[in-house]
Amino acid sequence: MLLLHLSDIDEASWARAFAQALAPYPVVRRGDDFDPADIRYIFVWKPKPDAFDGLDNLKAVLSLGAGVDALLKHPKLPDAPIVRFVDSDLSQRMSDYVVAHVTMHHRQFSRFRDDQDARRWSQFYPPAAGETTVGIMGMGVLGQDAAARLRPLGFDLRSWSRTAKSIEGVQGFTGQAEFDAFLAGTDILVNLLPLTPETTGILNLETFGKLRRDKLAGGPVIVNAARGGHQKEADIVAALRDGVLGAASLDVFEVEPLPADSPLWTQKNCYITPHIAAISNEQSGVAYFSRVLRDHEAGKALVNVVDRARGY
Amino acid sequence: MLLLHLSDIDEASWARAFAQALAPYPVVRRGDDFDPADIRYIFVWKPKPDAFDGLDNLKAVLSLGAGVDALLKHPKLPDAPIVRFVDSDLSQRMSDYVVAHVTMHHRQFSRFRDDQDARRWSQFYPPAAGETTVGIMGMGVLGQDAAARLRPLGFDLRSWSRTAKSIEGVQGFTGQAEFDAFLAGTDILVNLLPLTPETTGILNLETFGKLRRDKLAGGPVIVNAARGGHQKEADIVAALRDGVLGAASLDVFEVEPLPADSPLWTQKNCYITPHIAAISNEQSGVAYFSRVLRDHEAGKALVNVVDRARGY
Repeated sequence: MLLLHLSDIDEASWARAFAQALAPYPVVRRGDDFDPADIRYIFVWKPKPDAFDGLDNLKAVLSLGAGVDALLKHPKLPDAPIVRFVDSDLSQRMSDYVVAHVTMHHRQFSRFRDDQDARRWSQFYPPAAGETTVGIMGMGVLGQDAAARLRPLGFDLRSWSRTAKSIEGVQGFTGQAEFDAFLAGTDILVNLLPLTPETTGILNLETFGKLRRDKLAGGPVIVNAARGGHQKEADIVAALRDGVLGAASLDVFEVEPLPADSPLWTQKNCYITPHIAAISNEQSGVAYFSRVLRDHEAGKALVNVVDRARGY
Repeated sequence: MLLLHLSDIDEASWARAFAQALAPYPVVRRGDDFDPADIRYIFVWKPKPDAFDGLDNLKAVLSLGAGVDALLKHPKLPDAPIVRFVDSDLSQRMSDYVVAHVTMHHRQFSRFRDDQDARRWSQFYPPAAGETTVGIMGMGVLGQDAAARLRPLGFDLRSWSRTAKSIEGVQGFTGQAEFDAFLAGTDILVNLLPLTPETTGILNLETFGKLRRDKLAGGPVIVNAARGGHQKEADIVAALRDGVLGAASLDVFEVEPLPADSPLWTQKNCYITPHIAAISNEQSGVAYFSRVLRDHEAGKALVNVVDRARGY
């Protein structure tokens, strides 16, 4: 039996779609009449504190999000394997966001907006893409997809990850020892890291100060599409004010929704979107997790299982 | 002998580079001491009215610009073949501009900027790239390069050109008869046409009204990186005001520099850049035209010769 436990989204719609995809396998929601001991799978999004109570026979926790940092902090998280959502549609949408913001800053959007506001005709030729280095932090499924889409655009690419990754056309840097060298050649820093104790607060003033300053007019740029916990927002405000950063595109925040009194809202050259870079699409989510459940019931191993020790 | 005649740019720098690349072939500038009858090639950018006076033995006119619409209107243009600048660096820079502005509008930049200005956290998920159709007008070297870079991003692509072009992954529409059908499925219209009598003023209210309205939130978008003569700016202002267009990115204008009293400067959702989408790079320009000149002197045919009847 599959139990759905989805907060803040249309659980009923997902339940109908799962029931149809898995029939005759039983699908239930909170509030339905069922015995918790019969639940073998739970599909969760922002689970409540009592989400897992009585589920003593769980075979797997299915997580709608690609990031599981919040789920791993659930005080009553059972010991069952956690399956993350890995999906080409989700990757596509995330890359859409990354490419739009990288190219916007590469083309000096802020400068030309300021000129337009002043009715100033001031010709300046942005560098060609190949003269600009995009540094991607995090080379999982999302980082690799972003790299694959930025590469045909001609950008010079480098990556930084926990373990060595060999990606065609991307200069790889690994671990703490190579972090500074990675930053020293990066003009536009894209964050697609999982949120772990090691990566919490990594987007801070010290990091920003190590980025390359002499290539991109206006200064280096950060694009954060991962988690608000990666960024120190006070540092971002200071860096944008002092010119340590030329611009920042942020889709995620320390507190969401971003509080109305956050100085980020009015910070010049800070481009805010309300955590909409990528959404887990219902159709592809149901198809993916139905396949996971069916395969597992048929005796196959689970895929994309979270490693709790590394945190993703 | 090669004569340089470049207005508004650093002619001396180009002359030094050409002299070095072509040595011992003689290179002269206006004001130098030479016999006009000795000039076999003239390299021009915005030639003055007397630019061609006395050049009775010209073998070719070399045009720094990719677009030759202004040159073709020169009242004393000699009958010699005109060689256009076709260059991968120029194409790259033009595509950089096109991709940045297409992706920005696809990701609903204007909507999120308005939300940020109002400190409003309003989640809205832009469509995936594959759900958005980019229509490219003009399938020459620049149009094909833009298509090749937009395709790996996942966009649905269509093109409109004078003669049929078969480009992988791009649905082709040809000539006046298929113009309306092309527009009817286009969400983001990119103009990379040559400026000819047939294409002058093609970006007008009637054209805008035929674009697809129900796909892109906010309405269809135009991106003009070709010539100001393609656009009716009064129509663009009206279309942006009335919601016929959701946004416009304009790099070129009917009059340049754009006059300070143009309503475009303050038009909401109009994104102005001062004709900087692509520049003809000195290094690649000298390499290209030196090769053209040398090959022609060695008896080879000229490449990328302008067809005066079609106007490009």
